[in-house]
Amino acid sequence: MVQAGHQVVAVWSRTLSTAQQLADKVAATALHGDKPDFAAVQADLYLLAVPDDAVPTVLQASKWPSGALVAHTSGALPLGVFAGYPQIKGGVFYPLQTFSPGRALTWDAVPLCLEAADAAGFAVLEAVARSLSQRVLRVPSAARQQLHVAAVFACNFTNHLLGIADALLAGADLPADILAPLVRETIDKAQSNPPFAVQTGPAIRRDASTIEAHTQALATHPTWQLLYQQLTASIQQAAETGRQA
Amino acid sequence: MVQAGHQVVAVWSRTLSTAQQLADKVAATALHGDKPDFAAVQADLYLLAVPDDAVPTVLQASKWPSGALVAHTSGALPLGVFAGYPQIKGGVFYPLQTFSPGRALTWDAVPLCLEAADAAGFAVLEAVARSLSQRVLRVPSAARQQLHVAAVFACNFTNHLLGIADALLAGADLPADILAPLVRETIDKAQSNPPFAVQTGPAIRRDASTIEAHTQALATHPTWQLLYQQLTASIQQAAETGRQA
Repeated sequence: MVQAGHQVVAVWSRTLSTAQQLADKVAATALHGDKPDFAAVQADLYLLAVPDDAVPTVLQASKWPSGALVAHTSGALPLGVFAGYPQIKGGVFYPLQTFSPGRALTWDAVPLCLEAADAAGFAVLEAVARSLSQRVLRVPSAARQQLHVAAVFACNFTNHLLGIADALLAGADLPADILAPLVRETIDKAQSNPPFAVQTGPAIRRDASTIEAHTQALATHPTWQLLYQQLTASIQQAAETGRQA
Repeated sequence: MVQAGHQVVAVWSRTLSTAQQLADKVAATALHGDKPDFAAVQADLYLLAVPDDAVPTVLQASKWPSGALVAHTSGALPLGVFAGYPQIKGGVFYPLQTFSPGRALTWDAVPLCLEAADAAGFAVLEAVARSLSQRVLRVPSAARQQLHVAAVFACNFTNHLLGIADALLAGADLPADILAPLVRETIDKAQSNPPFAVQTGPAIRRDASTIEAHTQALATHPTWQLLYQQLTASIQQAAETGRQA
């Protein structure tokens, strides 16, 4: 934010040390405690970057200046989470990226998905977003929920499949990075084609003997065996019905 | 093969046109038909690059010079597929990559997984493999089968998840490439850490309300809804038990 030319007026966190640490970095006032009082904080935008399930709690516990533009950063929560707070204007500022401690990210390419209760609020969100990223989209709550589900499939679930592969390699004393070129090529291909159109493997070939051999090979991992069978069935169903699966 | 300095003596395919087309490219003799006769073909290595289920059929239908080194290129078939053919020496030359028409590949980085019935056969396979790739591994049948299952999870199933995400985006009128930076970051992170250790998302957070909302959002896609539930359960189980899932 500061790098993009914005001034951070105040930083709030439940604990003083966290609040102070971040506030010091951006030369802002540190607020802390379970009942944040923003009444004296004058800002164009109040960003509620807290875990999804904390958003309603923090909203309820906080004091806001009248007419404050308060935006949460969640992919899952609808704009309706601000209903019941007529003294503030609600908004959503959802960065479509996964954040991990110690991994640097270039904001420039992170899609920022925005929504606001009114045009004036949207204009503020949009100005901030455009100062951070090349990719700014208006995404209403219903579409954002579909996007969030899609992200879970494409990222969280994909990571889990890579974890299963990693564990299977370790179980066979094979090097962990042996699949890396194949995974890269799979992703490159899926990002330059509709993935369903470039599906390969035993499921789409309906190679029953390989599928049976793989199912047997997973006998000691019943959860992964079940996943194998259902992913196989889902691939075959998608091939039959196109996108209507 | 030719680019790596090898001479291709003969090319066989079921149909004459395919055989001739490939043979012309590498200045080799074209053989065709359902009963390949390699008896007069003198070569150090006979590569059986046919679909998995065709390997036993072609083996049975072919005539080979005595002592010929015949290697299949399958990830799934054990070396035992050559049992019953004492006149030839069996081998496996398994390139761990996905091949698609129209996509160029650099062989240099493709892991080549080798196995042979005897040391002399292995030496031939290894010499050929090292002329093509930097990454040559000896992988016995049992480990190769685990590797093949792992590849199905990491690649075929991952592609299917990206296809589901793609379909969900299309259903919400969102651009197909909006998840691309998130997918790239997910893969980068999973390739520089054990994937189970960097799992994110509602499943690992045990965010029950988001999981319930996503499940509802998938009501019109029962197959994907079931996959969502099972992948969520598998993530939670892996977190509980480490790699013992």
